[in-house]
Amino acid sequence: MEIIRSIRAMQETARNIKERGLTIGFVPTMGALHQGHLSLIKRCKEENHVTVVSIFVNPIQFGPSEDYTRYPRDMEGDIEKLSALEVDILFFPEVKDIYPDDYKTYITVEDLSGKMCGAFRPGHFRGVATVVAKLFNIVKPDRAYFGQKDYQQTVVIRKMVEDLNFDVDIVVCPTIRERDGLAMSSRNLYLNEDERRAATLIYQVLKRAEEMVLSGESFDKVRDFMNKTLSAEPLIREIQYASLFHPERLEELSTGNISVYKEDSLILAAAVILGNARLIDNIVVDLTK
Amino acid sequence: MEIIRSIRAMQETARNIKERGLTIGFVPTMGALHQGHLSLIKRCKEENHVTVVSIFVNPIQFGPSEDYTRYPRDMEGDIEKLSALEVDILFFPEVKDIYPDDYKTYITVEDLSGKMCGAFRPGHFRGVATVVAKLFNIVKPDRAYFGQKDYQQTVVIRKMVEDLNFDVDIVVCPTIRERDGLAMSSRNLYLNEDERRAATLIYQVLKRAEEMVLSGESFDKVRDFMNKTLSAEPLIREIQYASLFHPERLEELSTGNISVYKEDSLILAAAVILGNARLIDNIVVDLTK
Repeated sequence: MEIIRSIRAMQETARNIKERGLTIGFVPTMGALHQGHLSLIKRCKEENHVTVVSIFVNPIQFGPSEDYTRYPRDMEGDIEKLSALEVDILFFPEVKDIYPDDYKTYITVEDLSGKMCGAFRPGHFRGVATVVAKLFNIVKPDRAYFGQKDYQQTVVIRKMVEDLNFDVDIVVCPTIRERDGLAMSSRNLYLNEDERRAATLIYQVLKRAEEMVLSGESFDKVRDFMNKTLSAEPLIREIQYASLFHPERLEELSTGNISVYKEDSLILAAAVILGNARLIDNIVVDLTK
Repeated sequence: MEIIRSIRAMQETARNIKERGLTIGFVPTMGALHQGHLSLIKRCKEENHVTVVSIFVNPIQFGPSEDYTRYPRDMEGDIEKLSALEVDILFFPEVKDIYPDDYKTYITVEDLSGKMCGAFRPGHFRGVATVVAKLFNIVKPDRAYFGQKDYQQTVVIRKMVEDLNFDVDIVVCPTIRERDGLAMSSRNLYLNEDERRAATLIYQVLKRAEEMVLSGESFDKVRDFMNKTLSAEPLIREIQYASLFHPERLEELSTGNISVYKEDSLILAAAVILGNARLIDNIVVDLTK
């Protein structure tokens, strides 16, 4: 595995690969790699000639009171995992190169960025859209891989790619879960034993909510159920949202049930603070079956 | 000359050109082509295998009270000029394809976009940066050509390209002028005979100001001279600015003269409303000689 730190070197390498007519698959990550990341990388390797993984903890997508400084970093472990998977290139740029002192340019995906997590993390999706655009211009991928766990991120990135005409296919892969259902996340490392146990409730609530939706229960009742059940867990310090959302517009589904709802799918999603971790999870409910 | 209207077709054509190892030079325009545009195209043809010119009057860079609807359009004349120059591809997209109904993504180059013209045209440079990024992703140029007449535009685009890591060289070409010095601009078509005559004052003032700067006159006195001289012309309805600016940061140079000024160049620039036209012009004063 080649490790590239310089932006210019990565850009030149990408240019050479493209000139040889090879496809580049790209998995952007913030490191502290888990099975979720590795599943993206496996899929990427199957579909492209060259696989590039980036590790970059992106400061501008963290709010001032968020966990940028304590975000888990494990370069040695990450390199081991990536080497074992025979990743071709690890791109691992420095913050001072990605955001030099006089950095001034930002990409905003209006409207979508303020909903769901965006309402609690102002500037987060501006930071995500900006860094992803930069990485696309550096790595020049044909396809880029993202996990469904960060559902809103996939919607914002798809919209940015469509609007700015990036010539990149966005591939969204299923959420990978622990045996007890907890969605894999680098932030699970923040949980102590009791919190880790309590965290399983999130997916349980989403699964139960899915059954309720499919059985025709009203969206209001489903939302009430989700919030009440999560509130009953004393280790959950805050429920930021636990609700039903439109799959593309990300609007909360206010009233009705599936018999009056017109789209092919809906999103059940929750964001909670549990101990020192902000945890999110979602289920895409397929209504076409 | 091939004329391409579809974004997807342009993107595919560009991909094929790149895969053949050829370079793409790109001249984005809003049409109503004059000698200024043609000089960019000639330079582009010298330096690249394939030359793409786009014509797109970009609605989002015009304010609500500006001249978007009456901006001069002359497709027939433009095609004739481009054919005569043996341009390879004219990309001429439709507004509804560039900005579909649910368009949401915008690029902002903070700070620089609010100075000079930006102070009088809120949103203008956001519109410019956004459309240029889109066109770069569609046309995939190795080099893109812009006229120095739109000085601030060149600074904003260079900054966007640097910040977002676009792999595109920005080439800025000298302002082309009429025999009497007036900078060529599609908006000169708005001028009646008297206004056209009065418009020559702008470049005369800039040239005289350049002499004053080089002779060591204080920046304050130069600015006063520029504003007083332009004010004396009754057909000039408004002076938006007539001053000295830092070449990269675009800050107005407040006090001092060249003996205390530390940069290699400074910008003399003016923007005035003359009749129905907003006219701009500038001189880059080289202080290294």
